[in-house]
Amino acid sequence: MEQVQNKQIILKDYVNGFPKESDMPLITSSIIRLNLPEGSNAVLVKNLYLSCDPYMRGRMSKSKGSYIDSFTPGSPIQGLGVAKVLDSGHLNFKKGDLVWGMTGWEEYSIINASEILFKIQDSDVSLSYYTGILGMPGMTAYVGFYEICAPKKGEYVYVSAASGAVGQLVGQFAKLSGCYVVGSAGTKEKVDLLKNKFGFDEAFNYKEEQDLEAALKRYFPNGIDIYFENVGGKMLDAVLPNMRFNGRISACGMISQYNVQGDGVRNLGHIVTKTLRMQGFIVSHYYHMYSKYMEMIMPLIKQGKICYIEDIVEGLESAPAALVGLFSGRNVGKQVVVVARD
Amino acid sequence: MEQVQNKQIILKDYVNGFPKESDMPLITSSIIRLNLPEGSNAVLVKNLYLSCDPYMRGRMSKSKGSYIDSFTPGSPIQGLGVAKVLDSGHLNFKKGDLVWGMTGWEEYSIINASEILFKIQDSDVSLSYYTGILGMPGMTAYVGFYEICAPKKGEYVYVSAASGAVGQLVGQFAKLSGCYVVGSAGTKEKVDLLKNKFGFDEAFNYKEEQDLEAALKRYFPNGIDIYFENVGGKMLDAVLPNMRFNGRISACGMISQYNVQGDGVRNLGHIVTKTLRMQGFIVSHYYHMYSKYMEMIMPLIKQGKICYIEDIVEGLESAPAALVGLFSGRNVGKQVVVVARD
Repeated sequence: MEQVQNKQIILKDYVNGFPKESDMPLITSSIIRLNLPEGSNAVLVKNLYLSCDPYMRGRMSKSKGSYIDSFTPGSPIQGLGVAKVLDSGHLNFKKGDLVWGMTGWEEYSIINASEILFKIQDSDVSLSYYTGILGMPGMTAYVGFYEICAPKKGEYVYVSAASGAVGQLVGQFAKLSGCYVVGSAGTKEKVDLLKNKFGFDEAFNYKEEQDLEAALKRYFPNGIDIYFENVGGKMLDAVLPNMRFNGRISACGMISQYNVQGDGVRNLGHIVTKTLRMQGFIVSHYYHMYSKYMEMIMPLIKQGKICYIEDIVEGLESAPAALVGLFSGRNVGKQVVVVARD
Repeated sequence: MEQVQNKQIILKDYVNGFPKESDMPLITSSIIRLNLPEGSNAVLVKNLYLSCDPYMRGRMSKSKGSYIDSFTPGSPIQGLGVAKVLDSGHLNFKKGDLVWGMTGWEEYSIINASEILFKIQDSDVSLSYYTGILGMPGMTAYVGFYEICAPKKGEYVYVSAASGAVGQLVGQFAKLSGCYVVGSAGTKEKVDLLKNKFGFDEAFNYKEEQDLEAALKRYFPNGIDIYFENVGGKMLDAVLPNMRFNGRISACGMISQYNVQGDGVRNLGHIVTKTLRMQGFIVSHYYHMYSKYMEMIMPLIKQGKICYIEDIVEGLESAPAALVGLFSGRNVGKQVVVVARD
């Protein structure tokens, strides 16, 4: 019976403000056995790819009644990832299966049946895609754009954080739907990607704009029908006066607000005067639609009609810096950590 | 052919900040004739009751692409009211009809066919009700509560500006729907009305609360399912952390934001983490449902199952002060101005 030591990234203590690498030390656990005890209905996995996602910041604070529990100080960070099943007490999974779902920031994890875990049916694409376009961020773009925003051909779509894990897909979905789409990002490199790689009609660097409201007015002289909100705060305040009647704002994240108390949004009156709908959603409430999404997205990937940029770093020990980097926009595309390739 | 002078309240000039009585002088027009020219399809009315409504503040500013045009400086204030038809070139109306709709702040008005104008079918109740419970505010409460918020029995409902033209109805609708409802207002007198007249389960004076968020936590230990937004700004910020999962916020007005640039709303992140829906609406888009509303509300009034408080002032010359008073909460209940009783 094989026994190993398990490297782990733990949360040292609850975090205030921006997270730092030192909040997430690497430790080595005592010896563990690579099989499950008799009668367990859990799944023992070897982690391959770990996903860095902005929502994880919320779990680093002491819970204030959020939709998801806080991490436990002293225990491994939890996150989405791709893994290989080494042993399974669960009927749906067997040794050798590839899976994606909620796992730990460690080499080996025991995943309880109650966690989100999908069996990977199609490994004919990059496995890391199951942390991004084929995983939670893909579903976020799909649900937020198609279900929440209900786009119509010819509508004007604005995407903030547009080169990120979700934004790059929303932009491409918008083009596939016959919309006009403008994206914003925080570097020239990202703006170039938006225009030249993802096919946005226009893109701009929000850090170079003194007056965001005026910038949006320039890019949307007729106004915005759909805003895919990834940022919050000042960006939302600039968007609201530029919205058109009956506009829709889907809110799946407000990354600018996760670490700091923002400036406050002053232009909410437009919600009344333009009859806007602003709708928050949590993607896991829509996972019943995952197979429908896969039917749509897989052919698009294989036919080269949609592309996906990842920012991949090597080694579990690189994970804390990768996660921290999300909040300064250091990543270009979906941030992934490789723990092992098989 | 009768000729008269027409007293009018005009807008002197566009207004910044809080409106003042002096922004709305009373003038006397030159002689007008009390019949319509041959071939007109307008309706000539004698105004009976005029409605003071918070949305009118928006029309006093130079238009910035709102859903409704600005008033014209030098011309009479436009507003909703109840009137008697003196002459009609429109097929739907004839001399002697009672109507409610968009009229002028003056003794006699010519209403064009393109304006909102309803024929009053049932004058077996107080005619002034057609500026309130049987008019636009009633429809606002009905649409905002039933259509936008989709209440379920047992849900927790919070109404701000709860003794106002709309709020007092939302509270009573909530009770009729089997909800638990708490209202807030700005004086002890209004709080007493909420509890003793309108049947709110609880009510409080928001001006006496140092910490609105904590006050709401006290009144809603289990959180709020439905917030009927009449205020905006700080109140909205206090409500957001107290909302429950899948909560709904209907926004038909944000009176605290009409005159001043507010502090900004900082707690919008809860829209994401609690999957809230915040929906603006404009009641005139729902006027096709007016007859359905009348079928519901009229029996409730006649059976004494719903009540409606009005704050009635006498004389066209009292109208500017009455309108100004809305923004300091001087009115108790729906603010109405009597121009003539028949």
